[in-house]
Amino acid sequence: MQIFLDRHNLDGFLFVGDSICDADMYYLTHFLAGDRFAALAQEKTTLLVSSMETGRAEKESIADKCLSTSQYKIREKLKSSENWEEAYGQMLAEFLQDHSIKHLGVPFRFPAGLYQHLIQDFAVTVLESPASRFRAIKTIKEINAIADTQRACERAMRQAIHLIGSCEPRGELLYHDDMPLTSEKVRSAIDISLLEDGCETMDTIIAGGLQAADPHARGTGPLAANAPIVIDIFPRSKSSRYFADMTRTVLKGEAALEVEEIYEAVCLAQAEGLRAVRAGASGKEVHSRVSEVFRDQGYPETEGQGFTHSTGHGVGLDVHEKPSLGEAGEILEVNHVVTVEPGLYYPDIGGVRMEDMVVVKKRGCENLTHFEKKLVL
Amino acid sequence: MQIFLDRHNLDGFLFVGDSICDADMYYLTHFLAGDRFAALAQEKTTLLVSSMETGRAEKESIADKCLSTSQYKIREKLKSSENWEEAYGQMLAEFLQDHSIKHLGVPFRFPAGLYQHLIQDFAVTVLESPASRFRAIKTIKEINAIADTQRACERAMRQAIHLIGSCEPRGELLYHDDMPLTSEKVRSAIDISLLEDGCETMDTIIAGGLQAADPHARGTGPLAANAPIVIDIFPRSKSSRYFADMTRTVLKGEAALEVEEIYEAVCLAQAEGLRAVRAGASGKEVHSRVSEVFRDQGYPETEGQGFTHSTGHGVGLDVHEKPSLGEAGEILEVNHVVTVEPGLYYPDIGGVRMEDMVVVKKRGCENLTHFEKKLVL
Repeated sequence: MQIFLDRHNLDGFLFVGDSICDADMYYLTHFLAGDRFAALAQEKTTLLVSSMETGRAEKESIADKCLSTSQYKIREKLKSSENWEEAYGQMLAEFLQDHSIKHLGVPFRFPAGLYQHLIQDFAVTVLESPASRFRAIKTIKEINAIADTQRACERAMRQAIHLIGSCEPRGELLYHDDMPLTSEKVRSAIDISLLEDGCETMDTIIAGGLQAADPHARGTGPLAANAPIVIDIFPRSKSSRYFADMTRTVLKGEAALEVEEIYEAVCLAQAEGLRAVRAGASGKEVHSRVSEVFRDQGYPETEGQGFTHSTGHGVGLDVHEKPSLGEAGEILEVNHVVTVEPGLYYPDIGGVRMEDMVVVKKRGCENLTHFEKKLVL
Repeated sequence: MQIFLDRHNLDGFLFVGDSICDADMYYLTHFLAGDRFAALAQEKTTLLVSSMETGRAEKESIADKCLSTSQYKIREKLKSSENWEEAYGQMLAEFLQDHSIKHLGVPFRFPAGLYQHLIQDFAVTVLESPASRFRAIKTIKEINAIADTQRACERAMRQAIHLIGSCEPRGELLYHDDMPLTSEKVRSAIDISLLEDGCETMDTIIAGGLQAADPHARGTGPLAANAPIVIDIFPRSKSSRYFADMTRTVLKGEAALEVEEIYEAVCLAQAEGLRAVRAGASGKEVHSRVSEVFRDQGYPETEGQGFTHSTGHGVGLDVHEKPSLGEAGEILEVNHVVTVEPGLYYPDIGGVRMEDMVVVKKRGCENLTHFEKKLVL
């Protein structure tokens, strides 16, 4: 952090937000809070939290110092200003002065209301948060945490695939215990498995039939027989806060030749994408390679059809973080953790996606996903 | 919204963020997305989402129009700028010009990086988000959604209290099936109950013994016998996205006279607080009344001890939202939904808190919490 501050000629870098939504703040403080607090990164890190949170912050956070908003008389300021934002801005100004700040850095996502207030008294530079770059490169401990979440993710995937595999195709639908199997039912089995493993997840994708033609469709209602079902699970460990992310596509019943060919094309594109991942290559190069494999196999991207998204993204305290494996993909570095997840989508067929999560190495990558790839159950 | 725009002489109000963390954006769009998008509120509401999300946004959102970032050539902009924030800012500027924006409003939490970009081409005013005020006042449908989440919350509370009640106090600890009962075990029972009811929760408080002296302590390890255990559950419905929030304090074993007296004082303070809630009263008045009851009973607040937090807060798409029942508490309006949650905390005794959730009415309030208050199990 000190090197970053020196390079930009800053006396400190200030974050204000909650650390549930702002993973940079959690990364720097290890203090998990749903209510807004401030973290000032200098040579040491100082938190400014409500008096109610000071005890917990002192116990749980890795910051060097925890100050309470009551030391800055936030209540009195609130009484006189009757506007939370102004009172909070005044308090921040005093807090920054106490820490000898003249030149201050804030991240792109810093609240504009407070930015407006602080530029009255400080030279404020808005910069990309250095934490976003720091945390893209994982320690061994972080990689182990991600791998642990991935194991839970795979157990949940196993439950989902087992449930689909145990169905009977009747007409256009899949039946389980004489009832049509639904996306909701599969999602529920995944949720319970993840909960047992201490993980949570918000929005698992179980999209079958034509629903899967939209890569972000969550999936709802009865699942189709003889059609690919995309299962994309991205849980977070409640204890470590680290995510994992994986996707498989399965089909129960008879696969049309066209679907089998699409599935093979996605597998090949993924294998080539994985082969292209190594420190020094750019995310853009990996993405170009995957796009090229699709084109070569006769699946060019056309507006809204084919391979319509980027190849992958970093995974860590956020499910989508740096680096990107897409059009603007940065240079990959050792111990980046990224997904490689090509897919093909057609409105009249549905979709197929395959996603593994890997650690970038000097020569190549290490796949953290240990799960077979098999279309027809 | 149009009245708000006219009053501030604005051509539109722009939100940029993700609607998982920004409840205002979810409220205005009903489009749930973990990745950043833009929502422009004018007479009509227009979304600007990635091409991958356009299909889902058109299906799920209540916005009048959904545009894709690919229409604004975001990929080409990324290629030439090599900086996501700048490319996004350029795109936003074009988008705003297409919507005849000259005077633009943005909320306090609008990202400073984009704010800096937009002030080059537009007259930008940073204001409190109007949505935060709109959504504090609930429709009948919203109140029903909150009440539904509250029913799930109560079923989970029942499980937790049943588990604690079925324990045997041995020495200083509670035993269940010959094993010490832990905060984690109770939390897990709550999690499973909530999941079965389609709810999720992040951070249930199960704090016993001296841990409960810190009102925000999550609670960990074996639970003490003969000492109050604070159970604070605040789940969100996965389908409606609405929260509920309730707290009970229970004790298994023998209660010291001092603890019983504290419990009675909290019950009385809560009853008086609930009596003070009605449209036209301010949150500040309710809070003052509760503080007064505590003082009158011989429990004055001293730094870090006694009644150390505010009386309550609004509940809705956020677990903490407007209005506040504290020092700066606004005037309460019909169909605000608020908690009334006094507590007393002492480092050598522990803590007691009692929380109900009510709908503000013209004369008084309607309690959405249907759950007994009983200390000793």
